[in-house]
Amino acid sequence: MIPRDAEDRFRLARTEGVGPITYRRLMRRYGSAAAALDALPALARAGGRDTAPKSPQPGAIAREIDRLGQMGAHLRFIDVEGYPALLALLEDAPPVIAVQGDAELLDRPAVALVGGRNASANGQRIAETLAAELAAAGLVVVSGMARGVDAAAHLGALPTGRTVAVIAGGLDCPYPPENTDLQRRIAEAGAVVAEAPLGTTPQARHFPRRNRIIAGLVLGVVVVEAAQRSGSLITARLAQEAGRELYAVPGSPLDPRARGANDLLRQGAHLTESAADVLDNLPDHPSREGIGRSPLFARGAPPGLSAPDSFLEPPENVPSTAPEGPIPHAQVLDLLESSPTPVDDLVRRCQFSAAAVMAALLELELAGRVETLPGNRVALLAAPAF
Amino acid sequence: MIPRDAEDRFRLARTEGVGPITYRRLMRRYGSAAAALDALPALARAGGRDTAPKSPQPGAIAREIDRLGQMGAHLRFIDVEGYPALLALLEDAPPVIAVQGDAELLDRPAVALVGGRNASANGQRIAETLAAELAAAGLVVVSGMARGVDAAAHLGALPTGRTVAVIAGGLDCPYPPENTDLQRRIAEAGAVVAEAPLGTTPQARHFPRRNRIIAGLVLGVVVVEAAQRSGSLITARLAQEAGRELYAVPGSPLDPRARGANDLLRQGAHLTESAADVLDNLPDHPSREGIGRSPLFARGAPPGLSAPDSFLEPPENVPSTAPEGPIPHAQVLDLLESSPTPVDDLVRRCQFSAAAVMAALLELELAGRVETLPGNRVALLAAPAF
Repeated sequence: MIPRDAEDRFRLARTEGVGPITYRRLMRRYGSAAAALDALPALARAGGRDTAPKSPQPGAIAREIDRLGQMGAHLRFIDVEGYPALLALLEDAPPVIAVQGDAELLDRPAVALVGGRNASANGQRIAETLAAELAAAGLVVVSGMARGVDAAAHLGALPTGRTVAVIAGGLDCPYPPENTDLQRRIAEAGAVVAEAPLGTTPQARHFPRRNRIIAGLVLGVVVVEAAQRSGSLITARLAQEAGRELYAVPGSPLDPRARGANDLLRQGAHLTESAADVLDNLPDHPSREGIGRSPLFARGAPPGLSAPDSFLEPPENVPSTAPEGPIPHAQVLDLLESSPTPVDDLVRRCQFSAAAVMAALLELELAGRVETLPGNRVALLAAPAF
Repeated sequence: MIPRDAEDRFRLARTEGVGPITYRRLMRRYGSAAAALDALPALARAGGRDTAPKSPQPGAIAREIDRLGQMGAHLRFIDVEGYPALLALLEDAPPVIAVQGDAELLDRPAVALVGGRNASANGQRIAETLAAELAAAGLVVVSGMARGVDAAAHLGALPTGRTVAVIAGGLDCPYPPENTDLQRRIAEAGAVVAEAPLGTTPQARHFPRRNRIIAGLVLGVVVVEAAQRSGSLITARLAQEAGRELYAVPGSPLDPRARGANDLLRQGAHLTESAADVLDNLPDHPSREGIGRSPLFARGAPPGLSAPDSFLEPPENVPSTAPEGPIPHAQVLDLLESSPTPVDDLVRRCQFSAAAVMAALLELELAGRVETLPGNRVALLAAPAF
């Protein structure tokens, strides 16, 4: 369902300095995207920035929405009906995603298959077989359409069931180029999901954002052939933080491409040789069990998702510049560093109220001075972004 | 230390129908091997056998002891000083073992490396490297001197530390023949352990007995490349039943030689890529910690080890034929089948006292009608063994 203020939501989501967490806070604080957009210049000014954060022009957004419609893409807005329920549980769930194909698949029980781009022939064969078996068992197979394991997973699932590709760039920028035809086939038979605007060619910073969407959509992540410190392990960590199950395919200690998966096994991932290892250890999907009772969500509630918002409720009680004047900003900046600090610690070490600190953080973020991170943490940005 | 009645102990241990568990019971019941040997004919008769169980001639035993001495072999008798402490914890620990080389190694912290005889070149390389690292770290590396992983483990440990080979046949019958030189080197630099009499060429039934000695000597067992239903998995199961740690080297699902090790990982074995995975998960050795407090032995006390003996204490109170006459034997035989039955269940379902049932079982075993198994279980033998 597309809300009437879709354009405003799009603009707010794409405003400089407004990340997914801040988007959700601004929406709750101001009640609508339009009201939040109106408030942004004053907030950023209070944070020490002298120009208003840049938002896309309404006309440009309208044209993009039109074009997405022509491509047959569906839009899903966070906290609006139709947004995938599992994905919405992520603290930094994307404010809006574009879905080409069958968007209903995103609310079906799904598992992700991820792994190395440089996977061996055996690794790709394992991914393809696992994907085919899991899809045949009725699970949606989610992956990132990269070379290697990702492509093998999509190719394995296409003939036996349904598959979803989450891409790092815009829907009109298939990457890598050789997977252009694969993306078309997935859009026809499954679904392709993008957070980035049309015209975005994926860059390094887009891949972790793609990975969090993959982790957010699924009940569990299967890792096939992942080296240590690889992107697949980032997806695995994000999935674990979101309370999803982890599965890993073992490999020989002599194969460096197996190190990451073996590490995950050491940390308690389910050893996976065939689809049965996944199916035997699958949590219940909320659509079947009710979110409250499912073990996945008992475990998965991200820390601090509601706590910071409760500081802001009722929003009207918190002036956008705290009564103490500009001092909280200076003290907050003083207490922060470039590695993430829990907001709770910050509040404890500040002489100001939690509400004043939270308001200052929002303003500092919009001014490009700090960054809000999942897990109710905040970090100093190295240099102002403007 | 060789007890003065070594010949009698040897003869009792090698008497037809006297397995390791029965050996220990007879020794406790009669106080000496000579007294047990004297009692055997009457016990077997009470069990329904009309000839005395066969024992080796004293002269033959004396000659074997002489010959073992000439080979430089040491004898270790169960429940006599010098017998390896960890091995003695097994309910079915061998009554006597012959050790060529440094018998003190058997009381040092040790791990076993076991795996397939048909191991791949990679599997053998992994075994050799692991063994070299573990031996260099001061652990005694125990294996079975078979082809493949066993031989690689011994070869890996020889240059960096100490290794012990447990063989299935007699000390004078190296097997497989191509490992004759390896056995000589291990006897010189480490130790070779045999339970079977001199002159025994190993047969299929000897290998599970060899495997239990390997499991009994070590703090843990590392499984490298074991197919499903392989002998290495029997060693792993015996080690687990004895409360020892299990380690397994992962492998690709496409390699059938990795199935067994992957199964062990699924069941909770420590994933092992290098010696650090073993060293980081090693229980304390009783020689350093005291048996009572070590977690290994809190967990490892085999069920029923002391219970059946307590039924027999004090032995003098239990007549070798129970006052009820021959009836317990018939009822016991009636209640048993060829699959193992717990002795506790048998006692509950019998109208006779536990002591009478235990006495009947001993007699039936010596008569070749039943078999006593670890875990305080007993099974009917398919046909009388005489």
